[in-house]
Amino acid sequence: MSEIRQDVTTKEWVIISTERLKRPSDFTNPMAKAERPVYSPTCPFCPGNESMTKPAVLSYSDPKTGSWLVRVVDNLYPAVTPGGGASRKVDHGFFLSASATGNHEVIIENPAHNKPLALMTDDEVATVLRAYWERYDAMADKPDIKSIIIFKNHGLAAGTSLEHPHSQLVATTIVPRHMRIQYEVAISYYDDNGRSLYAALTNRELNSGSRIVLDTKRFVVFHPFASHRPFETWIMPTDCQASFGAASKEDFPHLAHVLRLILLKLYQGLDNPDFNLVIDSAPVGEEHTEIYQWHIRIIPRITQQAGFEIGSGIYINTALPEETAKFMRDFKVKT
Amino acid sequence: MSEIRQDVTTKEWVIISTERLKRPSDFTNPMAKAERPVYSPTCPFCPGNESMTKPAVLSYSDPKTGSWLVRVVDNLYPAVTPGGGASRKVDHGFFLSASATGNHEVIIENPAHNKPLALMTDDEVATVLRAYWERYDAMADKPDIKSIIIFKNHGLAAGTSLEHPHSQLVATTIVPRHMRIQYEVAISYYDDNGRSLYAALTNRELNSGSRIVLDTKRFVVFHPFASHRPFETWIMPTDCQASFGAASKEDFPHLAHVLRLILLKLYQGLDNPDFNLVIDSAPVGEEHTEIYQWHIRIIPRITQQAGFEIGSGIYINTALPEETAKFMRDFKVKT
Repeated sequence: MSEIRQDVTTKEWVIISTERLKRPSDFTNPMAKAERPVYSPTCPFCPGNESMTKPAVLSYSDPKTGSWLVRVVDNLYPAVTPGGGASRKVDHGFFLSASATGNHEVIIENPAHNKPLALMTDDEVATVLRAYWERYDAMADKPDIKSIIIFKNHGLAAGTSLEHPHSQLVATTIVPRHMRIQYEVAISYYDDNGRSLYAALTNRELNSGSRIVLDTKRFVVFHPFASHRPFETWIMPTDCQASFGAASKEDFPHLAHVLRLILLKLYQGLDNPDFNLVIDSAPVGEEHTEIYQWHIRIIPRITQQAGFEIGSGIYINTALPEETAKFMRDFKVKT
Repeated sequence: MSEIRQDVTTKEWVIISTERLKRPSDFTNPMAKAERPVYSPTCPFCPGNESMTKPAVLSYSDPKTGSWLVRVVDNLYPAVTPGGGASRKVDHGFFLSASATGNHEVIIENPAHNKPLALMTDDEVATVLRAYWERYDAMADKPDIKSIIIFKNHGLAAGTSLEHPHSQLVATTIVPRHMRIQYEVAISYYDDNGRSLYAALTNRELNSGSRIVLDTKRFVVFHPFASHRPFETWIMPTDCQASFGAASKEDFPHLAHVLRLILLKLYQGLDNPDFNLVIDSAPVGEEHTEIYQWHIRIIPRITQQAGFEIGSGIYINTALPEETAKFMRDFKVKT
């Protein structure tokens, strides 16, 4: 019999469908990945092709060679564009709309066309995290920005359009309703219990142990109790920091090691699955509240969302997080 | 500049990204569809292979030949299974879970392996709707069932696993949170305005006209103002009926004609796109409230949900509903 579990952070339900259970090994990517070149002449993100993008808003360079290591540019096809706050809403008498204002940037993670985060060095990943943080900080300083979403789409099934390793940052002048709902749930828990829902969640996961992938004391990696999709992985800081903007830069080398190790386990264990990575963070201005805790979510895109999910909002997860966490915990990376 | 629009039924935001706009003709399916046989010896839903499924819980037969026209069976790999109500929740001290109880049925829409709804006759589609309704009614009579979701996955990108035309019904012993949120929004509108949000929405769409695909007085078909994905299509009854269980069976021949025509326009206009179809309906016991209005949603799966949607809950729609509605309205089906 299947089990239905409640996501403590959103109160959403997830069906863990053991009738449809697949073993972790069934999730490996059956498509052989094409060999990719280190440089592609048509790729706008490759070194030498910088004129194919907008000018860099941030660039880190190798002090010896002078060539860039990470480069951040405005997205050529932005979902949101600068131009003022959300106050300029247009009321159609019934419908509500506004200009989709904000900033949409691309973080080009590495000069190499064919080097995903999983195959970078810890230092290279730390440089990417530093760029995330620096752009987050720059966006949070803008007067109208309310919410900053950093994310990555790896592979076609994850919605990527360019294969050169890159992440994106979208800063919006509204707070997403999704975030408001998470916040309401977190506030309600805080009011009832006098402590953070996310700290309580991390403690519960540590006490149970069955869904823990990695615990470095500073970061706890687990597959959540009500995991929405197979191998959904959360990386949770143990220090209380509501917003990614409040993260300690001193932690980035350590976080980079943790992130790279998890991505490498997925890369080797599931044969380079398509995945999304998102950084969940408190809205701008709520950096130091105890209500929320920024964290990283990695969501492999192994299964399709279908009509039931669209109709009900209830995910059907075909894998038990206890089993996928064990697989990830036990998997030894090959170096 | 892109526009951000609010979905009046959920208060969710959708970015209509004109920077990324695709023209309707760009959405046609580039993959040539393989020719499919009328009968497949390995298909559990083809006539003659009935022993490969569970026994029929409902079957309509041709009075002349005695062979079945529509056949409903329990799903062999159910997401939920019978066994009592949601009261048997297990509290893990912090996490909430329960047995995933309910019913999961498959509606085999036609004996022909290769005849999608779009290519059936109006009578055949009406028979499918009658089966939906009859199974909905049977589920609503069960004491523990709280919510009934009827849906269809057409094509791989929509999450289908079997190509023989079929729909599914999942009856659950909980009300999805998604439904609760829609309900809260609808109640709030009703309290403020003394009339149904959905009736107001349909009137607004009729008055505007720009997003209307078809208006038969009895059913209004439109692309919603804050459409989540390209070519998202709603079929809205004009009579106030909160639940699909309260739908008039007398309307089914007419609804079948409307549904088939819309699906045929998609089939011919976008070259048989993958899509999901869901029937949104009030929870069981709320059949006759004026708060809600059952309706059909058709969601072509042309674009991928990516990291931004997962991180923010905000959809980026690359098409303007005014343009896609015009395309659908003007498209003349070939018979």
